[in-house]
Amino acid sequence: MSLDPAAAAALATVRVVGTGLLGTSIGLALTGQGTRVLLADPSPTALSLAASLGAGEPDPGGVEARVTVVAAPPDVTAQVVTHQLAADPGTTVTDVASVKGQVLRSVGETGADLSRYVGGHPMAGRERSGPMAARGDLFVGRPWIICPGDKSDPARVSDVRVLAQAVGATPVLMGAAEHDVAVAVVSHVPQVAASLVAAQLQQVPDEVLSLAGQGLRDVTRIAASDPVLWAQILAGNAGPVLDVLHQLRADLDVVIRGLSHLAGDGARSAGASLADVAGLIHRGNVGRERIPGKHGGNPARYSILTVVMPDRPGQLGRLFADIGAAGINIEEIALEHAPGRAVGLLELSVLAGAEDALVETLASGGWQVVG
Amino acid sequence: MSLDPAAAAALATVRVVGTGLLGTSIGLALTGQGTRVLLADPSPTALSLAASLGAGEPDPGGVEARVTVVAAPPDVTAQVVTHQLAADPGTTVTDVASVKGQVLRSVGETGADLSRYVGGHPMAGRERSGPMAARGDLFVGRPWIICPGDKSDPARVSDVRVLAQAVGATPVLMGAAEHDVAVAVVSHVPQVAASLVAAQLQQVPDEVLSLAGQGLRDVTRIAASDPVLWAQILAGNAGPVLDVLHQLRADLDVVIRGLSHLAGDGARSAGASLADVAGLIHRGNVGRERIPGKHGGNPARYSILTVVMPDRPGQLGRLFADIGAAGINIEEIALEHAPGRAVGLLELSVLAGAEDALVETLASGGWQVVG
Repeated sequence: MSLDPAAAAALATVRVVGTGLLGTSIGLALTGQGTRVLLADPSPTALSLAASLGAGEPDPGGVEARVTVVAAPPDVTAQVVTHQLAADPGTTVTDVASVKGQVLRSVGETGADLSRYVGGHPMAGRERSGPMAARGDLFVGRPWIICPGDKSDPARVSDVRVLAQAVGATPVLMGAAEHDVAVAVVSHVPQVAASLVAAQLQQVPDEVLSLAGQGLRDVTRIAASDPVLWAQILAGNAGPVLDVLHQLRADLDVVIRGLSHLAGDGARSAGASLADVAGLIHRGNVGRERIPGKHGGNPARYSILTVVMPDRPGQLGRLFADIGAAGINIEEIALEHAPGRAVGLLELSVLAGAEDALVETLASGGWQVVG
Repeated sequence: MSLDPAAAAALATVRVVGTGLLGTSIGLALTGQGTRVLLADPSPTALSLAASLGAGEPDPGGVEARVTVVAAPPDVTAQVVTHQLAADPGTTVTDVASVKGQVLRSVGETGADLSRYVGGHPMAGRERSGPMAARGDLFVGRPWIICPGDKSDPARVSDVRVLAQAVGATPVLMGAAEHDVAVAVVSHVPQVAASLVAAQLQQVPDEVLSLAGQGLRDVTRIAASDPVLWAQILAGNAGPVLDVLHQLRADLDVVIRGLSHLAGDGARSAGASLADVAGLIHRGNVGRERIPGKHGGNPARYSILTVVMPDRPGQLGRLFADIGAAGINIEEIALEHAPGRAVGLLELSVLAGAEDALVETLASGGWQVVG
């Protein structure tokens, strides 16, 4: 990828402060297209790892950068942003913290030059953290939310937009308050819910966990995330997260009251019924259906076929060779194993119009389609 | 698959009462190996669909079956079990309801012959329901929990074990109360949590949902499940589900108090701190790690590599052909798309010992490995 001249000027030199997963990934993406990237991190080990991975060079000091990206933990982001605004008086400072309102307020309270600060939040991440987990294409195709403040200079906003596009992301402009409300519901509360479910597994016997199916695995996958980072994120967005958690708790209480009624506990079940429990699950159906699928489309546009896969080398190759030879593009795949058995089930999603061709291809290849 | 002589005798004729997803799938699996399957359902449409799919023949009446499987909705299972015990005095009756204690108690209260009733619960299902979603290998490799009552005749328990094995499942013996506590934590409460999170999405603007990532999709996948069925399941297991939900709500209250403290709401935050929030997420880490991986093993035994996949036909075929030619077995695959971009990321999991060979194979095939 190469940049147009204006973008190339803005991104000739970029400073990245903080070489964890996000900072190192940004460095990798920028060096890959010719930007000089200056790296800084309070941890000499993280800094040297990021540099040796090719994310940039340790900041020698005294160099002016048009753009500075603060990729520090959320609880120190405002402080580092303020420091960078003062340290390099010509630079545009942005950050990548998952919360935006609090950072903007804190920087403003210091009297710093807010015309050069434009908050950002790339919607990309992994369960793993640190520079070793970084990758140059982490942001490709992901939304990169940009939250200008009232005082942000439009040219500085443009710098951040150029940065987001340069690493392959799609810039989305949004106010800081609007951002914080949005991520509370699509990211922060789901994290809390996954952790709550997984926390109930801590004490149960192994035999019980051996009954776990794909549903439990899916619900709890993100429960593997870093506790310290997530405590900071939730703390930084406490207001909007609390609004959603209070509503979720009210819904949980409806379920608890409805089930208490059935369990014969009259005192706890005033006014609740089984219909309320079904109603909550129905509301979940409706909410779930609203999540866009791949390409922002509606998941209902896909057809899903399930193929029996013998659990031995070469089967996936043979299958996808058949599919590729027929010119069919697979939209989603999911391999589900039968524990302890030499067989797996592979779900293939195709655009609705391609279903017949896929059925025919699988049949002529001798593949067993089971659903 | 063919049965040994004793099993073949037990399964010469099996009656399946209820031709939804589970009943039809059992019929398909049994007819596939020579069992005569007699089908019954209050819905003539469902019955005729199941028969036309090959799950068996409509029950002509007057035929004795050694085994009767009740695959009715949970709220009528006890009634249908009682009826079947009386209607065919030689038959072993089992069922497939997700709750076991309530069914056993209800059947016992009718004065029915409990020596011939042995409850069962195949741990298999899909988000879709009805005979059209059925498949003969639905139970392959899945646990099939068998819950004999105190009065169950051992020969009848053996019948159900033979049935479970005949359809490819792994029988697991467990008391009804123990079963109900187990499924509350690994299945019923995760369903409630997924529905609670998804229900919060009902009113949010489309722009917010366009920010949804894989985490939200995973947490809410099972929120697509049938409200009426799930209300019945939760109602039938109200006691054990409430025990877990009360604990989950207590943990939720800790998070809410901790965040209220940070949001400056002293009244709601007595004794809570950010460390409590991090502690809950840490407990989720521990619980999540306890879930067994494929083959009952520890997920940590796998190495994961991420490969960049151009989003066009034939790429998966070329990749898996390379991998198959190298004799490498892939344990898990997950394809993650970059919305709106012509590239996807494919995560490949292999047993730890196979990682080097996979790295080499991908490198020599020119594949871009990014993590």
